[in-house]
Amino acid sequence: MSQIDGGRSFQDVKDGRSVNRRMVLLTDGHSDPVTAKTASCLLRFCPDEVVAVLDRNASVGNAEDLLGVGGAIPVVKSLDQVPQAHSLVIGIAPPGGKIPATWRPLVIQAIQRGMTIYSGLHDYLIHDPEFVDQATIHHADLVDVRLNRESEVASAQGLNESCLRLHTVGQDCGVGKMLVSVELSRSLQQAGLAAKFIATGQTGILVEGDGCPVDSVVSDFVSGAVEKMILQHQHNEVLVVEGQGSLAHPRYSAVTLGLLHGCSPQAMILCYEAGRKSFNGLSHIALPGLVKMRSICESMASLFQPSQVIAVAMNSRNLNSRDAESERERVRQELGLPVCDVVRHGPDDLVEAVIAFRQGFLKDPV
Amino acid sequence: MSQIDGGRSFQDVKDGRSVNRRMVLLTDGHSDPVTAKTASCLLRFCPDEVVAVLDRNASVGNAEDLLGVGGAIPVVKSLDQVPQAHSLVIGIAPPGGKIPATWRPLVIQAIQRGMTIYSGLHDYLIHDPEFVDQATIHHADLVDVRLNRESEVASAQGLNESCLRLHTVGQDCGVGKMLVSVELSRSLQQAGLAAKFIATGQTGILVEGDGCPVDSVVSDFVSGAVEKMILQHQHNEVLVVEGQGSLAHPRYSAVTLGLLHGCSPQAMILCYEAGRKSFNGLSHIALPGLVKMRSICESMASLFQPSQVIAVAMNSRNLNSRDAESERERVRQELGLPVCDVVRHGPDDLVEAVIAFRQGFLKDPV
Repeated sequence: MSQIDGGRSFQDVKDGRSVNRRMVLLTDGHSDPVTAKTASCLLRFCPDEVVAVLDRNASVGNAEDLLGVGGAIPVVKSLDQVPQAHSLVIGIAPPGGKIPATWRPLVIQAIQRGMTIYSGLHDYLIHDPEFVDQATIHHADLVDVRLNRESEVASAQGLNESCLRLHTVGQDCGVGKMLVSVELSRSLQQAGLAAKFIATGQTGILVEGDGCPVDSVVSDFVSGAVEKMILQHQHNEVLVVEGQGSLAHPRYSAVTLGLLHGCSPQAMILCYEAGRKSFNGLSHIALPGLVKMRSICESMASLFQPSQVIAVAMNSRNLNSRDAESERERVRQELGLPVCDVVRHGPDDLVEAVIAFRQGFLKDPV
Repeated sequence: MSQIDGGRSFQDVKDGRSVNRRMVLLTDGHSDPVTAKTASCLLRFCPDEVVAVLDRNASVGNAEDLLGVGGAIPVVKSLDQVPQAHSLVIGIAPPGGKIPATWRPLVIQAIQRGMTIYSGLHDYLIHDPEFVDQATIHHADLVDVRLNRESEVASAQGLNESCLRLHTVGQDCGVGKMLVSVELSRSLQQAGLAAKFIATGQTGILVEGDGCPVDSVVSDFVSGAVEKMILQHQHNEVLVVEGQGSLAHPRYSAVTLGLLHGCSPQAMILCYEAGRKSFNGLSHIALPGLVKMRSICESMASLFQPSQVIAVAMNSRNLNSRDAESERERVRQELGLPVCDVVRHGPDDLVEAVIAFRQGFLKDPV
């Protein structure tokens, strides 16, 4: 039995949008917005499907107070408080990729209730003998969002040149590319465009209900896996392809470049976090500046067609309002591009930049 | 049982250099030097370990006549002719990654003799139920050279800055980066340097006896897998790290950039094939020029330390002598660098360039 054939990937289940998953988000003891990124984003983008957040030690009663998002969605201390829930979501993305030991009884309890367990960790649920045994007995589904069977190389042909492929690229990982991509695609839809968010990471996949976890794809097949999604969805007017990592990231640049070449964007949104000086997880390595980042992104994206950065998405979560405005103005001047923080300012500046670019692009496709 | 845990990787076997593998190279019906790249390179670099080439329809009697390399090593039509052989090597690298159907009886026969089977294909021997059953019965080893357990990210620290990390980068795949890397590392050894070839593909791994098949590593872990080899071998004076693909290749650039950042070279050798106009397997996409390739390689390699292309390795297999010389001179002028074809001219120009660079580098480490 192979690693893949033994388990269920998200692509097997595909219930992300067709049914209400009635999710409990497990963040127990790790309830800060950065560590609990998966939970925070599901609260932001799929609040109708979230029954509760589970944290046994929380001193607050609702998600907004715990994670800064989610309004009155309750924080519970036990699964017994939410008999109506259908699924349990591992709501964190720890660097080690392992489920905390103290969480195991909670996961086992959910399995014994027959709930579906969603996990985006590199360590698969289906490789855990106890989880598998219990799931078999109690007819529970274990869904490893990162599991994939991608095994095809890219063809570099067949693109619909009237479909605008937008890509969120970044100075680093963990700067908000996924959040920007979802906000932007939803706002483009509200503006009347047929726009689709192309999810490339576990949280985006849980939000959108489809996608491909590119960082878990074998390196030979990353571009092919992304191209497959583009070919499948290019009947839309705009695709917003979620970026991963950074072309400059010493750990993850393989993922980033395979993704960039697989989606072959005509336009990019450059994402960064204000005040961050060094790479996520590598405090000894300074981030390249935004001008340099724009240059390498455009250079690597433009090998076979023109591609340009058309706007900047700033993440200013660590700044006060006044500092955020002066940072915004500084970057506007430095890059000569629209700049906004989609959480603080909303995505209007990005939407305008995309619509303006698309008008020029339709007159004169690249 | 997981995909990985069920099989033996090359790293488990590690007999590449400690015993004579007494190899039969299987190229049956695919005996041209490009398709049978694995066989050709083993003939070139490990002739003492090759007992025979197996091609049932060959009309010639020795490897030199069949594949242009290997001298008097015989071509046989049956395993029965080589009772002294210990292993059978799948000697080709087909794009589909599958063993030709007509080869199955030969592989089964070898397994039944208890021979070790080496395969570098993406389709693993250990996923073939018939091969596995027969191997169990006959105590034969199935060794999938591409199998790996890499699951660690890069740390981007701990490099020995007095070790020169050379990297062969390319305009395309299949231009000779592996061959150049082995020739160069052996010549540097002959020049008295402690040099080590770092193999990153299946053929190189079979030649060197260790290495990592980076194109089969999960994309998040490519740089980490390469960095691990660097840290392990950086007590040498020079490491020659085999490149893969091309930073511009629409299919494989993920592999290439992860490898580049994982080995963090101070100097690079740019490899290309004279006369090639489009990417391997993608005839509709023109190759970027050599000046452009040098520029993007240096740009992506130099994000955190200076890194430069110091010489060009030309593959002139499709040119006659006169055209090869004029091409060599043209590229010398265009790039202002030493240029040679290691097969046609020997690697002396590359060795000189490396030694000169190393002298400057030791005076003033980057």
